[in-house]
Amino acid sequence: MTTLTEADLSAYAAGCALLSTGGGGAVDSEVLGAAKVLRDHGPVTLIDVDALGPDDLVLPLSAIGAPTVADEMLFSGREAQLVRDEVERQTGRRVAAVMATEIGGANGVAPVGWAAALGLPLLDADGMGRAFPELPMVSMNVAGIPTDLVVLADVQGNVATLRPTGSDWSEHWSRALCVASGSSAVMADYLMTGDQARTAVIRGTLTRALHLGRLLHGGDPLAAVMADLGAMVLAEGKITQVRRDTLEGFTRGHVTITGTGTFHGRTAIVDLLNENLAVREDGHIRASIPDLITLLDTHTATPLTTDTLRYGQRVTCLAWPCDPLWRTPKGLATAGPAAFGYTFAYHPVEEHHTHAA
Amino acid sequence: MTTLTEADLSAYAAGCALLSTGGGGAVDSEVLGAAKVLRDHGPVTLIDVDALGPDDLVLPLSAIGAPTVADEMLFSGREAQLVRDEVERQTGRRVAAVMATEIGGANGVAPVGWAAALGLPLLDADGMGRAFPELPMVSMNVAGIPTDLVVLADVQGNVATLRPTGSDWSEHWSRALCVASGSSAVMADYLMTGDQARTAVIRGTLTRALHLGRLLHGGDPLAAVMADLGAMVLAEGKITQVRRDTLEGFTRGHVTITGTGTFHGRTAIVDLLNENLAVREDGHIRASIPDLITLLDTHTATPLTTDTLRYGQRVTCLAWPCDPLWRTPKGLATAGPAAFGYTFAYHPVEEHHTHAA
Repeated sequence: MTTLTEADLSAYAAGCALLSTGGGGAVDSEVLGAAKVLRDHGPVTLIDVDALGPDDLVLPLSAIGAPTVADEMLFSGREAQLVRDEVERQTGRRVAAVMATEIGGANGVAPVGWAAALGLPLLDADGMGRAFPELPMVSMNVAGIPTDLVVLADVQGNVATLRPTGSDWSEHWSRALCVASGSSAVMADYLMTGDQARTAVIRGTLTRALHLGRLLHGGDPLAAVMADLGAMVLAEGKITQVRRDTLEGFTRGHVTITGTGTFHGRTAIVDLLNENLAVREDGHIRASIPDLITLLDTHTATPLTTDTLRYGQRVTCLAWPCDPLWRTPKGLATAGPAAFGYTFAYHPVEEHHTHAA
Repeated sequence: MTTLTEADLSAYAAGCALLSTGGGGAVDSEVLGAAKVLRDHGPVTLIDVDALGPDDLVLPLSAIGAPTVADEMLFSGREAQLVRDEVERQTGRRVAAVMATEIGGANGVAPVGWAAALGLPLLDADGMGRAFPELPMVSMNVAGIPTDLVVLADVQGNVATLRPTGSDWSEHWSRALCVASGSSAVMADYLMTGDQARTAVIRGTLTRALHLGRLLHGGDPLAAVMADLGAMVLAEGKITQVRRDTLEGFTRGHVTITGTGTFHGRTAIVDLLNENLAVREDGHIRASIPDLITLLDTHTATPLTTDTLRYGQRVTCLAWPCDPLWRTPKGLATAGPAAFGYTFAYHPVEEHHTHAA
């Protein structure tokens, strides 16, 4: 049994930012919010998936909405409690543990505060091992956990219980309510028992985020996280073009990185849809979802979110293999290139790298 | 105790169309749908509000969405049952009777089929006595019945339970889900006990619609309904201009009626927001919400919906007093001119008429 304390938050959030692949929301304001809750309520207990009883009810929580809004319109602090209370009313059962639906970015940090405020343990696991832009892109969906009950609360105190006919309608209806509430809400979906969780989540991702964050805050951070992740550098240089729009609640576009140093003479293009989706060079795909692609500030090793990229930034583009779950046929159907409208076939990032070497 | 049979449907629907003030959806396709249900399940029992037990649960039902969509995308036929089942699950109580939230237009007709299919009696009452474009514009809201539980089902079988913080959020969230589902859904709100209903609904509106429809289908229909309603003719002539857009799920605009016969040389302008809102002549308001304004085809006495008005139609514009509830301060705040963004003060239509005579 581990605890996550206020002193851990900064490193933990840096790890979440690294795993965010540019999405999941900026972590800074969530760190402030979670720190206050931990000061008021004490540290959060992290529990392993194997510590759950067979019928323990796991509550996966996440914020849904536009990251740019989340940075400006703060939550009321009551949303997670409204969601927990409604879930207990709808199921007639008590929640045993909170889980972060998405470890990447702000959605990895906020559940620390939610669990602390609710007095519940936080599962050392999540449903993505990274960040993804849409609700169905979770390991629970790949594992066949039904999405037949969704509970959502907004900053005004409105609460909705959805019984969608499938994961697409869960996304469609939740997004509609979120937009109606000003593009910001807290939601629970893919409720599970302990036994279900053991087949359906990605384990150890919270302690991994903390570990990665400590490496980022230590000496020679880039080399340290690369060794730990098995990551490779796909580009290093200066951002020379940013094409980016906010459309239908998503950040879409691409950035061009003109190589410097050992990458002199090379140009990489990174496609964005909230997260970094793919890296192209000379018309070839160098890496793509579901593998992880993160841009870091070359000088500070700070992970960068897609909405903050700008002309002239010096960046290093890292890529590393995703959880094996995402490379299964169902995993690729859920969050591989085709799920994002691409027509190219997925190749593991380490194979691309071998080809290009 | 009265029944409503398949043979009554055509006249009943004509009465609903007359009370619709141009909105509430075209009745024709709902007549076909309700007729099939009545053939399969037998007639519906109409019950008086006074026949309800003190704790009998009343289920107000309505379709929400764009009338133009409702004419093309038919309901699955399962929506009302999904809503009833979810309401019973949420409240832990059995529904005793169905009520039409809105008597005007298709929303007056559809509940006949819903009640018949559910095997429930239908209350001889509604929440408007006419049609209005937004959910909070109901007598239950004026009476202070809370809108803290809303249940909505769509054609795909998705079901939502909303616990909004107020009637504005009920409208806002329900509209968002409805639009996400293709601008068509069936919903229940303002659930009431029998004792609450006795203080909060407009009584006798279903038998009144049937009576008015029989007058419309009888001899000298225009004179007959005018005498029955205490209606006055505000314009008669030819539509010479139609300005109409479908914006944010509403039909908005105005039509110009150039007078003929006794109205030769006079021009009336009718403002539209799904329903007919106001009649202007020479810069003066002749009638406005919440009083009822309906355009009829001059030759056939058929009530016309706002989305079918077109250049060259010969129309007669009737107006008559609304239910006294709408003339109270709370009624006017809920559905008077200011609720529609007008700055003019409300005057009862019979006073305007006296002034103009």
